[in-house]
This record gives sequence, C-alpha cells and structure tokens, in this order.
Amino acid sequence: MSKTGAGNFFEDFRIGQVIKHATPRTITVGDVALYNGLFGPRFAVQSSDVFARAIGYPRSPVDDLLVFHIVFGKSVPDVSLNAVANLGYAAFRVLAPVYPGDTLNAVSEVIGLKENSSRKTGIVFVRTTGCRQDGGKVLEYVRWVMVRKRDEAAPVPGDHVPRLPDAVLPSTLGDACPRIDVAAYDFTLAGSPSRFGDYAVGEKIDHVDGITVEEAEHQIATRLYQNTARIHFDQYSAAQGRFARRLIYGGHVISLARSLTYNGFANAFHVTAINGGRHVAPLFAGATVFAWSEVLARTELPGRADVGALRVRTIATKDRPCHDFPHKQGDQDDPAVVLELDYWVLLPR
Amino acid sequence: MSKTGAGNFFEDFRIGQVIKHATPRTITVGDVALYNGLFGPRFAVQSSDVFARAIGYPRSPVDDLLVFHIVFGKSVPDVSLNAVANLGYAAFRVLAPVYPGDTLNAVSEVIGLKENSSRKTGIVFVRTTGCRQDGGKVLEYVRWVMVRKRDEAAPVPGDHVPRLPDAVLPSTLGDACPRIDVAAYDFTLAGSPSRFGDYAVGEKIDHVDGITVEEAEHQIATRLYQNTARIHFDQYSAAQGRFARRLIYGGHVISLARSLTYNGFANAFHVTAINGGRHVAPLFAGATVFAWSEVLARTELPGRADVGALRVRTIATKDRPCHDFPHKQGDQDDPAVVLELDYWVLLPR
Amino acid sequence: MSKTGAGNFFEDFRIGQVIKHATPRTITVGDVALYNGLFGPRFAVQSSDVFARAIGYPRSPVDDLLVFHIVFGKSVPDVSLNAVANLGYAAFRVLAPVYPGDTLNAVSEVIGLKENSSRKTGIVFVRTTGCRQDGGKVLEYVRWVMVRKRDEAAPVPGDHVPRLPDAVLPSTLGDACPRIDVAAYDFTLAGSPSRFGDYAVGEKIDHVDGITVEEAEHQIATRLYQNTARIHFDQYSAAQGRFARRLIYGGHVISLARSLTYNGFANAFHVTAINGGRHVAPLFAGATVFAWSEVLARTELPGRADVGALRVRTIATKDRPCHDFPHKQGDQDDPAVVLELDYWVLLPR
Repeated sequence: MSKTGAGNFFEDFRIGQVIKHATPRTITVGDVALYNGLFGPRFAVQSSDVFARAIGYPRSPVDDLLVFHIVFGKSVPDVSLNAVANLGYAAFRVLAPVYPGDTLNAVSEVIGLKENSSRKTGIVFVRTTGCRQDGGKVLEYVRWVMVRKRDEAAPVPGDHVPRLPDAVLPSTLGDACPRIDVAAYDFTLAGSPSRFGDYAVGEKIDHVDGITVEEAEHQIATRLYQNTARIHFDQYSAAQGRFARRLIYGGHVISLARSLTYNGFANAFHVTAINGGRHVAPLFAGATVFAWSEVLARTELPGRADVGALRVRTIATKDRPCHDFPHKQGDQDDPAVVLELDYWVLLPR
Repeated sequence: MSKTGAGNFFEDFRIGQVIKHATPRTITVGDVALYNGLFGPRFAVQSSDVFARAIGYPRSPVDDLLVFHIVFGKSVPDVSLNAVANLGYAAFRVLAPVYPGDTLNAVSEVIGLKENSSRKTGIVFVRTTGCRQDGGKVLEYVRWVMVRKRDEAAPVPGDHVPRLPDAVLPSTLGDACPRIDVAAYDFTLAGSPSRFGDYAVGEKIDHVDGITVEEAEHQIATRLYQNTARIHFDQYSAAQGRFARRLIYGGHVISLARSLTYNGFANAFHVTAINGGRHVAPLFAGATVFAWSEVLARTELPGRADVGALRVRTIATKDRPCHDFPHKQGDQDDPAVVLELDYWVLLPR
Repeated sequence: MSKTGAGNFFEDFRIGQVIKHATPRTITVGDVALYNGLFGPRFAVQSSDVFARAIGYPRSPVDDLLVFHIVFGKSVPDVSLNAVANLGYAAFRVLAPVYPGDTLNAVSEVIGLKENSSRKTGIVFVRTTGCRQDGGKVLEYVRWVMVRKRDEAAPVPGDHVPRLPDAVLPSTLGDACPRIDVAAYDFTLAGSPSRFGDYAVGEKIDHVDGITVEEAEHQIATRLYQNTARIHFDQYSAAQGRFARRLIYGGHVISLARSLTYNGFANAFHVTAINGGRHVAPLFAGATVFAWSEVLARTELPGRADVGALRVRTIATKDRPCHDFPHKQGDQDDPAVVLELDYWVLLPR
C-alpha cells in the first residue's frame, strides 16, 4: 500500500460516504494575528475582547472566514486534491462561535455525484461539517467540485444531483451569534453609525480600497490553513500548467473581499451564512483586489430584537476600481470580476 | 449619507475637535510573534518573560513601537486618509507598559491648523493618545500632516500653530518603566556589557547590519496595525501616482532602525520618548536599510538609581552602509538617508 | 571597546571555552502560528492540543525544528557570524518537550578547532545546548563551521578534532517523548494508518508535493528565530558576494523537507535525533523544494512498547520532483540536491 496520499479520484466516491478528515487543529491567538496581518480586518467584535465582552460574547470570536478556511483545508486531501475546479458553494451556515483555544475537526459526506460527458471528470457534491473538540458543530456547507478520474474507463455509480437551496432561509440564521446588548455596542468605536435599519434593498456600496496580493502572502495564508492543494504553493509544477503561475486559493479572495467590505458595512460583524459563491476568474499575485456590494434583501430574525440580517452580494474585481459597480456585460461576466459572493451578514438593530 | 468613509479633508478639522477612533484592538502574543518575524528585535526584556520578571516587570512588555503602530493606525482613517505627507512628530511619550491581553483605543485632539498658500492643502496638528481598556494612557504624541482640501474654495479657520517642544524633558521620562532590579539584569544574556554610564555624548555607533524589505513584509506589518493608508497596499492606484510604487509605511522604517540599533545598544531596552522624527525620503520594497546613531545627551532620571536615559539620533539609510556615518552633505540631506529619529532610550545604570 | 558585536573569528576560540548566548526567548502560540504559516506542517500531535492530551502530552508540544531554529539562532552572533560555511551536524538529540510559554536559552562549548592549510580560515566544532527556564536541557547538538580568521598571521592553538558518532545510539532516543497511549492515538485523524511496524528498511518514499520559497518567507522565518546571519536578510551586501543573492538559511530547507515528509510519514510525529546533515547546495528564493526519503534502519526503544524509531534519510531537491529518488550521480551529488538529512523519528507501534 502506498504511504503517500494521492487523494481520491472521481470513481473513488460513493453517495453517502462519510470521510473523517485529518488533521485536527487548535486555533490560537497566533492564527488570529497572522490572519489580521494578511487581510487587515477591522470589525470591532473580532478585534477587541473588551468590545466583544461588552455586547455579550465571552471574548472576541475567531473570524468566521478563518474558521471556514481551516475546515475547508482539512477536506482538500480527501475531496479536492485531484480537482480541476471548485465549482460552487451552497447552504453554508455558521453554527457556533469559535474562540482561541478551540480545536477543529472536519467531516464530509458525499451527497451527489455526476460524471461529465467526457468521462474524464465528474462532479462531486459534499456536505462538510466543522466541529469543535466537544463535538459541537461550528460550520456546515455544501460544495461541489470537478474531480478527475484516475481511469476514464472506470465504472461509476449513476448520477445523483442533490437539490440545493438558492439561499439559506432567514429562519435558520444567527445560531453562532449570542444575544447581544445593542445598548452596549459602541458605534463610534466600531467605526460607523449605520445599523441594520439604515440599509435599503438595492443599495450599492463601492468599498473604495484596494489590496495587492503578493505570492508570499497567499502561500502563508493557505499553509496556515493546512490546505494542501499544490497549485497554490508549487511554482515548478504550476509552470507546466494552464496558467504557468501559482493560482491564489479562492478563499483568499473571499477574505480580501470581506475585509474590504468593512468600509461600508463596519457593523456587519458576523457572516452568518453563504447562499452561494462563484470564483468567476482566477487571481494571481501582483493583482490588486477591489470590491463593491449590493444589498439583496433584509430580514429580521425570529424572536430576535438585537440583530437583523442583510443579504449581500459582493463582487470582487482585479485591477479595476468599483465606483461604477462592474458585474456583467450583457450575459457575460465583466472580465475584471474574480468573485461573486451571495451571503448573509448580521448587524445590530 | 455615504456609508463609506472618505476621511476628513483639511476644511473638516476644527481646533479643539476630539476624535475617538475606531477600532479597539486587543494585542496578543500572536501580534508580538509576527512583529518579531518582521523586524527581528533582540532586546531581552521584550523577548523573555523570565528576563522581564527577574528585573521587575510582571512579564515581557509589548515592544514600544508595536504599541505606537497600533495607536497610529487607528488615527489614519480620521486624520490622514487624505494626507499628502506625514511631516513630523513631537512630544512623544510612552506612559505605561502594555502587555499581551491589553486592549488599545486611540483618541486625537486637533491642536493646530494652518492652510498652505496654494489653498489646496493645509497642515493639521493632532495630539493622539493611546489608552488601555481601563482608561490608563499608554502613549501620547503630536504629529502634523499635510492634508488635501476637498474644495479649494472652502473657508477655513484662521491659522493656529501650536508651540511644540524641541525635546521631551528628562523629568517626564520613564513613566512606562517599572523600577528595575539592576542586580538581576543579566548583561550576558542581554547581549552586551554596556550600561548607561558606558556611553559618551557625541559617541557614534555604526549598527553594521542591513535588512532588505519585501512588499509582502511591509504590507503584512501595516495591515497588522489596521492602518488603512492605501498607498501602502494598493499597487493599482500607486502605479498612477508620483512614485508608481507602493510606499512603505514610515513606521516600518522606524521599527527596522530600532531593531538594527540592538547591535550597539543591546541594553537600551525601552524607547521612553521621541523628540522628533523626519521621514527624509520614501522607502520602497527591495531596498536594504542600514542605520547609525549618535548619542546626543545623557541624563539621570529624578529619583531613579536604576535606569538612565540616553538621547539618541538614529539615521537610517537605504542601500548605503553607515561605517562613515552619512547624514548631511552641506545643507542637504545625504541622498541615501530615509529617516532621522531623535529619541530617548532607557538603559540600566 | 566597540559596542557593536563583530562576532568571533577563528583565532578567538579556545578548546573548552563555554559561551552563554544572548537573547533568552519565550516561545508562544504566536511563534507556532507563524511557523505553521511558513511551513504548513500537519502532524496531529503538534497541531491539536486535544490530540496531544489524548495520548499523554499536557498539550501540543512545539515543533522540534522550531525549537532547534531558536536555539541555533542564539548561537549565530557568537559562533558563526564570520562563517564561510556551515559544514555539518552530529549527535543531535531532542531531550525534552517544549511548550508555549517556555523560555529558551542556549550555551555552546568549543569542542574542536582545526586551522585550514590556507591559514585564512579554520573549522570550529561546538556542542550547543538549549535549556528551558528551569535549567532543563531541551536539545543538544554538535555543529562544525568554517570560520574566517581576522588576521591570517594570528597564532592559533593546535588542531583538535573531536570524535563524533556516525549516528545517535538507539538507546539514547526518545527522552523528549512522554509514554504515549497508543490506543488513544487516532490514526484517521492523524492522516494515515501506517505505524512503526509498517515501514521496511530500504523502503523509499517520494513525498510528491513541492513548496516554492519566497524572499519574504525565509526572511520572516529567520528573523523569528533571531538569527542574525546577514547573508539571509541583506540583499545590498549579498549583491557583492559569491551568489549575488540572499542565501536561504539552511534550517529553512530542513523545515520544508520535514513538512513535506508528512505525506508518507504522517505518524512520525517527533524528530528525536539527527545523526548528520549536509547542506549540499545553496537554495535561493523562487526555487521549489521537493523531497524523498529512505528508511535506513528501524529500532525498538529500550523499555518502551509505545513508540519505535525509524532512521530516515531525507533528500531535498530544488526544481526537481523526486519520483525517481535523485541522490548521487556516480560519486557526485545530483545537481538538484540541496539537503541530505539523516535522522531518527518516532512513530506509534
């Protein structure tokens, strides 16, 4: 038996298969600091233990996306080491806050399989769940990914494409957010007076700032998550591939976009769910990422007077400021767009 | 109302205006580790909890300049987002030690305004104070910065230029340094036998070593401080500007210079005050920073037999070793000089 | 007396000389996070406090190589600041686990001296010991390094070349590994079912993955260790040297190779000893490092049924995948090889 993991190929997956991923990971304030150095987020709840405690957290929770990246990273060796492309996300919910000192594990269940007509690849749908040391779920999401077959001729199970929701239901949002004391929420310290009620559906916000990405930065980030997808680290192999360059982990773009949205959504302190996301185009080092957002919907949460949820679509671009909100050119994506992310954030009411 | 912060322009400031800055920030050992990785400081008090406790600290304090950078970063969105140039510092005093776990806030008061004759810009003088979670002041300094006007024709208040001291008075130094047990200070472990009394006024020291700066490094540092000045991160916009390159945050050069001074001032474990500083020329990635220092003055501190203060001028250069102490060429700055910093450090007596 | 350390030259060393190195260093979870971001190790014992506790550690120990780099870094200003080349290691033993919060010191004893026939340089052999705050030894190793003479004509003591073992004796391995509960060791979470008994002497493993190194990465790593060897940081001076480039710290390659070996030795959770190592060729930024290993020997440890030791030789290459196990071409090293490391790892039985 080979001792070196070659990852699973399309024909290795079965519907209902449950994969317990290596390697468990204790998150620390060191991880948080490095995440801050790489993305520069400024949301007060995650930045200040004092601020977090004032409103009802025991201390600053770990950034939702850092938790996601660590959970996602664990799934790579088993799910997407032989992936051609990461196609989408759905039904992504943050279920409990994570604090420094917590240890994360991840498990994935195969919930869909569909061979492509070329028979060279197929689409694998997995539901990945991140858990804490006590077994409590902290995160779950579905992703689907195009995976190579080891052997074109290998038989595969019949197609099974799962039904996925277009959006996470408002009634299921907010599990990871304790009831907060809005009176103790200092809007000046948080950087903006704008609350839930100040945003209108259809409102568009240019986040103005840009961040240039360096090779060292995305490599450090992705290794921090123990993500083993070699296309992100290995220039020797990348040089022989389609792009001839190391591809930046898609999650890096999501974190950059989230940090940029502070300028416009300073009080949107928690990403509670992701309805869907598309990595519209690849990103390479040296590019500068900009972003803009549109408020797609607003909703109160059942039984909660403290926070409300905004459904936001954030578009990230490369080397293209967003004052005129680039998105589509007719049916086509604007060539500058690299990410389209549709998600729910919570704000104080 | 726009939800996106455009920063203040010159005509937005008023004498006596007090600005409470976002975002509060809990400092952790993670921040300290990243700072160490970026600058490589070797002062024993900040490096070893055991060393710090032996001489009278409860544990290693956070590097004085890391505290400064975090406080400074908070003031950027309100004070200098529309700055043309950061002109100077004065009356900079470190008032209390900061430890991992402390949370920092910052407040600035506008103490001076002077419109430039072009009417396109003006100089804003602010006194910025950094505070701990319990309200205790940890740092205060005056800086002045040239800020653009939004509208040339906008009326502005009359000029008011504050009187600033040429140097911080010796009698006000040392507040952030607990009384230390010099007998327990291990000079071998600290790396040098040279005490306060071993330095002579006029003594010049070449710090010998050089450090090359990479884009990823200064970007990570500046984001760690939540400094939002886009010229440091955004190559797309920088490409259209005067330098066509990202400008390295001036504070980065100060930290590099401070780390270099270890080789010559190994026991100068605490920067207690900064009398003044000039960013003589911009620094860009790829350059190698060298430094040399001159002892300008020596002073005992009232009522303290444990430590004494040296007033030091450190000159940092780019791509130019400092064995011959480059500074001025006639009235002009030597073209290699990037920083001139005049400050007080404490050493054991 | 110069206040700037120029380091020792060959004629400054004496047999039996004991050098207590600056600067003591408290290791934190911040250092661990940065190490993880730079190298991406995935061994479960070091990654998860929960996993470590389950098998008998009080919490996750600090990576053995991070401890080594910090101890090594301390010795540089005294031992190898004027080195031409780092020639070898022997008798390297890890003696006790190190945990975040521990403070490390280092001491070196000169155990051998041999002038080269040119009289311009000589070889210095030192035994360096790393200690914890309570004086407990955590690491010891011998290294030898070619050091310049300040003055060719300077008299030197007669040659004394110490006898060094070819390999660390199995009976002396394992001091830093507590007795572990193998029944509680979760091989699925650790990422592989392969135990001590599953490896055969002579077995060769290609570790498959490659990691490209950026200048910012190796600079951050080496500064984190407070290693002051200027060839790693100072491009201005390097430009005038033999390679015209900054040389990557040899220990960086060791850590990259160790991280790569996870894919094949996922349960080799502890480097207990290093028999010898050679930096076969220099490494520069931009290169991609690959690795393969051969199992040289297997041994049980006296009185221990929990873990066994494998003697492994890992070969790291640059820009050269290792599927065909490159090593020698006749008597010569394969030109792609950068590191040959012969060491003992522990695995559960």
